[in-house]
Amino acid sequence: MSATIDSSGFDALIVQEVAPRDGLQIEPTWVETADKIALINALSTCGFTRIEAGSFVSPKAIPALRDGEAVFQQIERRAGVIYVALVPNLKGAQRALSARADELNLVMSASQTHNRANMRMSCESSLAAFDDIVRHAMAAGARLNATVATAFGCPFEGRIDEDRVIGIVDTYREMGVEGITLADTTGMANPRQVARLVARVLERLPAAALTLHFHNTRGLGFANVLAAYEAGARRFDAALGGLGGCPFAPGASGNICTEDLVNLCDEMGIPTGIDLPKLLALSRGLPALLGHDVPGQLAKAGRNCDLHPVPDYVRQI
Amino acid sequence: MSATIDSSGFDALIVQEVAPRDGLQIEPTWVETADKIALINALSTCGFTRIEAGSFVSPKAIPALRDGEAVFQQIERRAGVIYVALVPNLKGAQRALSARADELNLVMSASQTHNRANMRMSCESSLAAFDDIVRHAMAAGARLNATVATAFGCPFEGRIDEDRVIGIVDTYREMGVEGITLADTTGMANPRQVARLVARVLERLPAAALTLHFHNTRGLGFANVLAAYEAGARRFDAALGGLGGCPFAPGASGNICTEDLVNLCDEMGIPTGIDLPKLLALSRGLPALLGHDVPGQLAKAGRNCDLHPVPDYVRQI
Repeated sequence: MSATIDSSGFDALIVQEVAPRDGLQIEPTWVETADKIALINALSTCGFTRIEAGSFVSPKAIPALRDGEAVFQQIERRAGVIYVALVPNLKGAQRALSARADELNLVMSASQTHNRANMRMSCESSLAAFDDIVRHAMAAGARLNATVATAFGCPFEGRIDEDRVIGIVDTYREMGVEGITLADTTGMANPRQVARLVARVLERLPAAALTLHFHNTRGLGFANVLAAYEAGARRFDAALGGLGGCPFAPGASGNICTEDLVNLCDEMGIPTGIDLPKLLALSRGLPALLGHDVPGQLAKAGRNCDLHPVPDYVRQI
Repeated sequence: MSATIDSSGFDALIVQEVAPRDGLQIEPTWVETADKIALINALSTCGFTRIEAGSFVSPKAIPALRDGEAVFQQIERRAGVIYVALVPNLKGAQRALSARADELNLVMSASQTHNRANMRMSCESSLAAFDDIVRHAMAAGARLNATVATAFGCPFEGRIDEDRVIGIVDTYREMGVEGITLADTTGMANPRQVARLVARVLERLPAAALTLHFHNTRGLGFANVLAAYEAGARRFDAALGGLGGCPFAPGASGNICTEDLVNLCDEMGIPTGIDLPKLLALSRGLPALLGHDVPGQLAKAGRNCDLHPVPDYVRQI
């Protein structure tokens, strides 16, 4: 995949929609399998080329996503869309491959403490499991991506050594993993740090292989997107409605919001290929589906071009 | 005032706190005069050099700020802090000067429709009134700032011609107004547009005379701050807790949040001179004062350095 240049001179920005996975995983209300499938099918018509459609973790750990098999088996596969499954271990990978996931996304935290809290194993155990997963995925012809969680900071340990993150990226690549995600799991990144780390990682792999995953916990999600984009990153995770967060990261709020990101790109002239009005209609259905308000702002404010009626009294002045 | 360079190479960013004015003006619950004064006095100890402390508009139009005189007369004036009053007309300017406002902030929208909706007069009438205000302020030795509202877009008219904004800036300066604020009144700006307009305005006046006023309506507040900063802007309005909005701009959410902005600067190494822990403590008092949650995110998430306790089960792994 290579980034294209549009007439305004900006490279395309690729949005991977992660609401069905990172969005729904912490929802306290059970979302019916049919509703998940309907959501993914609707997202598939919005212009996305990548959707993280579910995860194959222990149903005890993440009960909200215990229907991963059914979801992957029953969604309508749209040509040109890669349906990604998050997997924590070999068993999860086997389940995902059986359910015809196009790509497996492996996750390990740069922080030992966060990996133990989130994956319930040490980083060393995670990496050992990944070796097995990579072999299975390659045999099955599935794509592979690996995420460095807490790459910009850990809620338990604080600062994360950048050399450690780079070392994990190198390890992933040496294992044969093509795609790499740098995840700001609990929204601790700042634009200066993002620009520096992205530049270092892009010395090691092409932009088409790198995804940035930002949370908007401290309001810096889009500032970080632009810093990463300016540093050469072209692919970003985002969740419809700004859903999501990490169940083991207290205080963390949602992923950056997909429709807010697409609006930013539309306003700046950065092509995404995504149909914003369709996306907004979907997002506006989330409160009814989930039973609560969601963080996304564009669905409330409307696009710039959604003008407000002029008040009657103004016409008298 | 000239921007200073710190050891990390970033110029200082000056934050003008506007919660007492742009924050409180749309609050439906009456905030007692004594509480307003206590808030401003507390803000005065946080390191701000500028606080927009109130407005002198018609008490019918903005009843929440009808006690402007009492507030300005009774706050403790801290050395080094400029206390600004927003004024819409000559009567307001006279009231503000009597109450010893250090600086008057005049406001007119670039959009005729928005000016009629907000100020209940045409742009031409606004400008005519400003001529009188400038004379009075100069005679009284007060500083002057003038704001171009809806400089980046109007909720009624949509796009605003950049030449029109530049023309208004020139008119303000020709009138003898030193400070200029470009206001994104309803959060329609994008970073590309911000960089372009800031660069054009800074061809006309020094950075020390320019303030950017962003709302976070569509989530782009901090992306716009950084675009403006990179283009040379050094002074920004922000409101404690992300309070505020425009009463005549339906759907508009709050100002960019002061403590979230200071956190961004602290994390990036941009000096502000503001005491973030003090600010956070103040912000965390807002829900009790106002009777509702506020949009600021840092007060909920905590700073990066506010680490979370490691769960017990992690120690067993």
